[in-house]
Amino acid sequence: MDIYQVRAEKVVKRIEELALITEEEGCITRTFGTKPFLEGSKKVFDWMLEAGLLTTIDNIGNVRGKLLSDNPQAKTFVIGSHIDTVVNAGKFDGPLGVLMGLDLLENLIQSKAKLPFHIELIAFSDEEGVRFHTTYLGSKVVAGLFESNKLDEKDCHGISLKEVINEMGGNYHLLPEDKIAEWLGYFEIHIEQGPVLYEKNIPVAVVTGIAGQQRAEITFTGVAGHAGTVPMDMRQDALATAAEFVLETEKLALEQKDKIVATIGKLEVIQSASNVIPGKVVCTLDVRCAEIDVLNAAYNSIKETCYSVAEKRNVDVKWNLVQGTNPTKCDETLTNALKEAISQSGHPVIELVSGAGHDGVPISAVSPISMLFVRCFKGISHNPLENAETKDIAAAIEVSDKFLEEVISNRL
Amino acid sequence: MDIYQVRAEKVVKRIEELALITEEEGCITRTFGTKPFLEGSKKVFDWMLEAGLLTTIDNIGNVRGKLLSDNPQAKTFVIGSHIDTVVNAGKFDGPLGVLMGLDLLENLIQSKAKLPFHIELIAFSDEEGVRFHTTYLGSKVVAGLFESNKLDEKDCHGISLKEVINEMGGNYHLLPEDKIAEWLGYFEIHIEQGPVLYEKNIPVAVVTGIAGQQRAEITFTGVAGHAGTVPMDMRQDALATAAEFVLETEKLALEQKDKIVATIGKLEVIQSASNVIPGKVVCTLDVRCAEIDVLNAAYNSIKETCYSVAEKRNVDVKWNLVQGTNPTKCDETLTNALKEAISQSGHPVIELVSGAGHDGVPISAVSPISMLFVRCFKGISHNPLENAETKDIAAAIEVSDKFLEEVISNRL
Repeated sequence: MDIYQVRAEKVVKRIEELALITEEEGCITRTFGTKPFLEGSKKVFDWMLEAGLLTTIDNIGNVRGKLLSDNPQAKTFVIGSHIDTVVNAGKFDGPLGVLMGLDLLENLIQSKAKLPFHIELIAFSDEEGVRFHTTYLGSKVVAGLFESNKLDEKDCHGISLKEVINEMGGNYHLLPEDKIAEWLGYFEIHIEQGPVLYEKNIPVAVVTGIAGQQRAEITFTGVAGHAGTVPMDMRQDALATAAEFVLETEKLALEQKDKIVATIGKLEVIQSASNVIPGKVVCTLDVRCAEIDVLNAAYNSIKETCYSVAEKRNVDVKWNLVQGTNPTKCDETLTNALKEAISQSGHPVIELVSGAGHDGVPISAVSPISMLFVRCFKGISHNPLENAETKDIAAAIEVSDKFLEEVISNRL
Repeated sequence: MDIYQVRAEKVVKRIEELALITEEEGCITRTFGTKPFLEGSKKVFDWMLEAGLLTTIDNIGNVRGKLLSDNPQAKTFVIGSHIDTVVNAGKFDGPLGVLMGLDLLENLIQSKAKLPFHIELIAFSDEEGVRFHTTYLGSKVVAGLFESNKLDEKDCHGISLKEVINEMGGNYHLLPEDKIAEWLGYFEIHIEQGPVLYEKNIPVAVVTGIAGQQRAEITFTGVAGHAGTVPMDMRQDALATAAEFVLETEKLALEQKDKIVATIGKLEVIQSASNVIPGKVVCTLDVRCAEIDVLNAAYNSIKETCYSVAEKRNVDVKWNLVQGTNPTKCDETLTNALKEAISQSGHPVIELVSGAGHDGVPISAVSPISMLFVRCFKGISHNPLENAETKDIAAAIEVSDKFLEEVISNRL
């Protein structure tokens, strides 16, 4: 049997073992700092230790295994992903990157590769941000970007981040010491969480960047009325207005469908009844794009369209920008090396922008970053149906091996 | 001062007095059979008695005041409306018709009019159907159309209709005896509950019919997905589909805006999140029209459009007809007499279809019916802001006086 297939099967076995550790029977849920989360961390810690890595758990709960260069002054190349999950998650989102990273280091150890720089495998403790509604806790600490005002944030049970750090055995005063000082680069393997590779029937893709995002909450206020007594042309229907906004937003995004995604995810009719003309509707907007100028232009254009639709219908609009993050670019040199590795492995080279956020976002502020996507079943993620086939993981291992060889031999 | 104005002021004073009797302080809420409802009924009973009517409360709680003809074999002409309310109602919906009816009878008594038929004023006990989710309890009993299987229906506290009837002092075995055997006709005065008269600046309108209704619940099932990772042209967005349905429905109804109203009143995105493409949406449809063929054609056309919109978007539809009621026509002879009375009173004659249901709906099965609408402020109803101006009530009194004179002199 193909050696990559054998390695992939071992990776999948570990992913499945980790998936059994959960807050709720029958689901996969391991949110930051919970008992099952710590049990999962311990398992990953043991695997790293077993592989021969210099393994520690830092103050924010990241599990970190080092493979040191003979040169103590060398910079560090980080391979990472996360081991926390959303509620009722899939197996692969996060753990795939951690356990493939472990496989890659096991392979380097086995092949007695001479390292011109340190390599560190990190299982980040909080990427999803479920518990404290703040993403990237783990990678922000490693990047030295942790905001200490977050320490007093509380979870839904009133437990603060400080207390959780203490419970996990960390010391929040020492968080700044967990930062990596000298970064050489960062590499993450992750399932695509989208349907492109599945539709194109290709196992892997190189990620060129992580989309920036604009999120808004929009309130339409018309006039509620009796569904039987207000003639069609005298209505100020907040839902019909919102519906037109939904379709105009979709149309705008479709016009630039290779660059933009735009989603109205939530839409609520306030005090609704089947026989009442909707008087008030609240909805959300989520626009993403890898290019900051295109993102801003699209967002502004959607906003303008919204106001003009509402004005035409004599409905009031309140537009509230909730969150804006800039796009992140992957490093060109690392990305080119990754493309070369994909090509050498016999696959077509597909470039994708990640519409989802990843730990590379904060890390990109301090290090060149690179990412490899692995096809997942129908693009389904954050769902028990999430799946990545072993043969695709094998393909990703081959590509990553070749990529790492290139990085090591050229000290990229 | 104008005599009609004086009479209107007395009507409004009584409406305001009745409005003080409520289940909840600061609101107007008198649902069927509650203590405040009974207190309100007692007040109306006393007013009818005081006016000299032969007054009773029947087994379903209707307050009934008769003005008898000398001819004991004569048929009965009923003037009525209801005294139950929705939760947090306005003052006028129902009580206006009852207390204007009382004024009309007081006037007949005062003028010593010779009656060729009996006239009965009825304050119906349940038109809104809030408590037992079944409308027209009062008028159905009077029409002899009460369905006895309703007796075991329970309210939200588990109290059955039977028990409520007992508590009110009624005997449910005797409900069939409350039926009026020989109907001459039915007349109801009601606020428009819509904005047409307000917009046209006209005090009253004749009602030509009460719209029939088709209500459906529609479920759109697409595929939920990550808002960042699924390209625009690979989505099966249930909300975008529903939005297109909302707009197509609106367009269809606007094309026949003088005949049809169509409303999507409720719309819920199931398991929604701002970063998730909506996978499932449930919404309601309410279509109303006075002409059965037009109603059915519009309903079918909206349904077909819904399926074709969903098919185009690869989204599944489940269509569930919740309720269908046929349109009710007002009697041509009575309606012509009403038009004549409006014209003689110096107002333009506006014909309106009632989009809301009224007690005339069940009564139309056993009697010719007629209705007069009175302008209300901005068309607002089922709301504390509901208002009808005293001068419009005065206009309606003049019209109703003339109408009754005509009905009496011609035994219509």
